[in-house]
Amino acid sequence: MTDLTTPTGGNLIAAERINGTNVYNLRGEKLGHVEDIMIDKATGKAIYAVMSFGGFLGIGEKQHPLPWSTLKYDQRQGGYVVDLDRKLLEAAPTYEGKDFAWTPDYGRQVDKYYNVPTYWL
Amino acid sequence: MTDLTTPTGGNLIAAERINGTNVYNLRGEKLGHVEDIMIDKATGKAIYAVMSFGGFLGIGEKQHPLPWSTLKYDQRQGGYVVDLDRKLLEAAPTYEGKDFAWTPDYGRQVDKYYNVPTYWL
Repeated sequence: MTDLTTPTGGNLIAAERINGTNVYNLRGEKLGHVEDIMIDKATGKAIYAVMSFGGFLGIGEKQHPLPWSTLKYDQRQGGYVVDLDRKLLEAAPTYEGKDFAWTPDYGRQVDKYYNVPTYWL
Repeated sequence: MTDLTTPTGGNLIAAERINGTNVYNLRGEKLGHVEDIMIDKATGKAIYAVMSFGGFLGIGEKQHPLPWSTLKYDQRQGGYVVDLDRKLLEAAPTYEGKDFAWTPDYGRQVDKYYNVPTYWL
């Protein structure tokens, strides 16, 4: 899994640097970029990637949390790939930045929207 | 595991906000704080926490990557607890900030120092 020939950290990335990693669809079209990652404090596991897309030059962009399991990292493109329709994403639950009060109900709504097992038992 | 009564995200924390989370020893003494987290891009799993300690008002502080398995999150203290001697930490491999060229050899050295199974196969 880990490419031992790369001199700068293999597959590791500093959380502070994750912002800006591109997200593509299966056809290789850029849909947006990762804005932040929501991490479970105890396990250190990423549960959601907060993805930004839409708008023009950052104006009108919306943030949407995607369950981590919907993303696959593609080494070749240097970004994440999702098998999600743009229309589905556009209608997806939004997230109002870092001060958003994230409730378990909201989390369950997100997980249900993407049809993945919920983190919020 | 997840506290459903908390209104602000349960055990989730935005990666951008992880900076500043305190690290304590088993006696509850503050050793330093988390500066950043090194994440495996593919799995979204935290592999190292970069911990800052020492110095005065940030001057002379050093950053040390700790294998994630050496940290336990303590809900009560709102921080991470490590069962590591301060002397061991002071002599630990250091990390020169975000531009540090993290090699597999360096990773193996860190994992060996803390006597944990290595991430770098």
